[in-house]
Amino acid sequence: MRIKERLFTPGPVPLPPEVIKALGQQIIHHRTPEFTQTFLEVREKLKKLLKTENAPILFASSGTGAMEASITNFFRKGDRVLVINAGKFGQRWRDLAKTYELKVIDYEIEWGKTYDKEKILEIIGEFPDIKGILVQHSETSTTTLHDINYLAEISKKLDDCLLVVDGITSVGVYEVYPEEIGIDVLVTGSQKALMLPPGLSILWYSDKAKERLSNSDIGKYYFSVLAETKKQEKGQTAYTPAINLIIALNESLKLILDEGLPQLAKRHEVMAQATREALKEIGLKLLSESPSNSATGAYAPAGIDADEFRKVLLKLGFRVAGGQDHLKGKIFRIAHMGYFDVMDIIQVISGVELALFKIGFKVDIGQGVKKAQEIISQNL
Amino acid sequence: MRIKERLFTPGPVPLPPEVIKALGQQIIHHRTPEFTQTFLEVREKLKKLLKTENAPILFASSGTGAMEASITNFFRKGDRVLVINAGKFGQRWRDLAKTYELKVIDYEIEWGKTYDKEKILEIIGEFPDIKGILVQHSETSTTTLHDINYLAEISKKLDDCLLVVDGITSVGVYEVYPEEIGIDVLVTGSQKALMLPPGLSILWYSDKAKERLSNSDIGKYYFSVLAETKKQEKGQTAYTPAINLIIALNESLKLILDEGLPQLAKRHEVMAQATREALKEIGLKLLSESPSNSATGAYAPAGIDADEFRKVLLKLGFRVAGGQDHLKGKIFRIAHMGYFDVMDIIQVISGVELALFKIGFKVDIGQGVKKAQEIISQNL
Repeated sequence: MRIKERLFTPGPVPLPPEVIKALGQQIIHHRTPEFTQTFLEVREKLKKLLKTENAPILFASSGTGAMEASITNFFRKGDRVLVINAGKFGQRWRDLAKTYELKVIDYEIEWGKTYDKEKILEIIGEFPDIKGILVQHSETSTTTLHDINYLAEISKKLDDCLLVVDGITSVGVYEVYPEEIGIDVLVTGSQKALMLPPGLSILWYSDKAKERLSNSDIGKYYFSVLAETKKQEKGQTAYTPAINLIIALNESLKLILDEGLPQLAKRHEVMAQATREALKEIGLKLLSESPSNSATGAYAPAGIDADEFRKVLLKLGFRVAGGQDHLKGKIFRIAHMGYFDVMDIIQVISGVELALFKIGFKVDIGQGVKKAQEIISQNL
Repeated sequence: MRIKERLFTPGPVPLPPEVIKALGQQIIHHRTPEFTQTFLEVREKLKKLLKTENAPILFASSGTGAMEASITNFFRKGDRVLVINAGKFGQRWRDLAKTYELKVIDYEIEWGKTYDKEKILEIIGEFPDIKGILVQHSETSTTTLHDINYLAEISKKLDDCLLVVDGITSVGVYEVYPEEIGIDVLVTGSQKALMLPPGLSILWYSDKAKERLSNSDIGKYYFSVLAETKKQEKGQTAYTPAINLIIALNESLKLILDEGLPQLAKRHEVMAQATREALKEIGLKLLSESPSNSATGAYAPAGIDADEFRKVLLKLGFRVAGGQDHLKGKIFRIAHMGYFDVMDIIQVISGVELALFKIGFKVDIGQGVKKAQEIISQNL
């Protein structure tokens, strides 16, 4: 039986037709009024997305590039930073900070959990000289949401601390307004809720962070925030930009802003809640104690290898992600950020049920789907 | 009168239909056998392109990113390097090397000229400890070709020197076989003769360069050659790759290899020669004393602002590039690398003639075109 493939991985996520159309076009030159106009439109839209008057800057790189820029532009060697390390991307903050000779307080957290507020107070009590708190808003590897509002409060209490947030799977999922929240550096990438192919990263910084720019003693060139800011304010870039991704970003941001940010956040909340409740109804255990609305991780049933289960699911057309490192073979992750709607959730839950049935797990077919439908019905 | 726009800038250059089609597709996930297969195919094709058994690595960045990687991965702080600085991109080598605390011998050359062999001998006589020679094979800002064969000879004579070549506008224009030539590090980018949008850079390194990798004391993370090599050998990447550009690269490399590398180099030579001779026939002075086959720069006629001339040319549909820095308003540059053929040259030369006519320059209409046709006729 012929079945269509459906992508439910937490990045890349499916592209809307408007984006595909924008990508499949002849190239234009970037040093033209035409490109500059598009670029400036993108900047205006990004300001709306982040509810700020400071437009973020773009890099031709994947999200890790903007994470690197957050370290190399806003810190000095030897600066002490606190890393909320609760998964694969928390580790990346730690590794980046160590690479560039920062002093790292590596607050390791069991995968699937979030930080403990008491522990944070303890750390800042012991190290009041902390210059930065590095955190994932949504830790994709464990589908976990970290409360960044509390960290913003903490950061403000410290003498000279920046809150640096990886929003790669939260911007476009939640309403992430860095100025309201008190974020100093916020990064995101193109291939998540911004519904583009990978290759474009975005970095926003606060006025407070700006003061650090001229003071940093860490070498950088391609990821120079000062060089890019200067150029991008005028609708250009220091180095050749990812032209077709920026043109496509103009389209995807239009879709996002047309939907409305509160509506977009609500849609993601409903999709996430429906996914979580449906999986629980099926009898599966969720991975995260503080689940993110961008993706949902769940353990495979006892005795079933999650990667084997994923293979069966793929035969039914659904490509979901597995676990990384020690979670490999134990969990699977379903994305619901970006170009997804509630009907997609119905489909993927149905797929999970049928795949479980196929591998012989005792499943009450339709119960998970019904649960998802019920939650959706209350939010139509 | 309606006129089509034609792009003749030295990057980005027009995309072939096969590439546009590959770009305008739904995304696929990168951690899949499907993507890995494409990636491994791309690696095989790149090996053929560079006639080597060592596949180069790819970064999701513009070409400058791979230039940065050449500095941060293969050198140590304080290493002395010789920069052949004959234009905007020579300056970039210098700035990158200085950013990462290398000791730079900045061999500044008048724009439009190439290096002097005697001068090189003098420099290496004075500084036998040179650890690297950094050069553009084709300096795009001045449309100048630098003889890299001679520099390879020189480099080999030195104790422990790497020849680092920016091939951004030479790979895919010339037959650039790094092992035959004696290049140690070769970088290129996607938006030139590889006929893709910007956002993908390529870095190849020799066995000799490889020995330096573990020894470098310069901080890097996103542009870590070791991390990427390890992953890419297995058909994956350390960080999220520019998926759709890699898929499109598979298409453009197919076009290149199907044409054949000697044929491709010959086509570029004929296009370049036709352009140069036609412009001279029209009465214009070429910018470069050692012209590259990737693009041709010429001075605007006396008393005519080159940028004003370019505006007239643009009204006729031809977008060519101007000069940078002190050459702004003085020169224009016509690209002929990648998805161009000899008939495109006829068109753009005709455009130059008509634009000159329009602004009142005394031009013998048809003479330049005829010259181009003659050269082409001898090479059909």
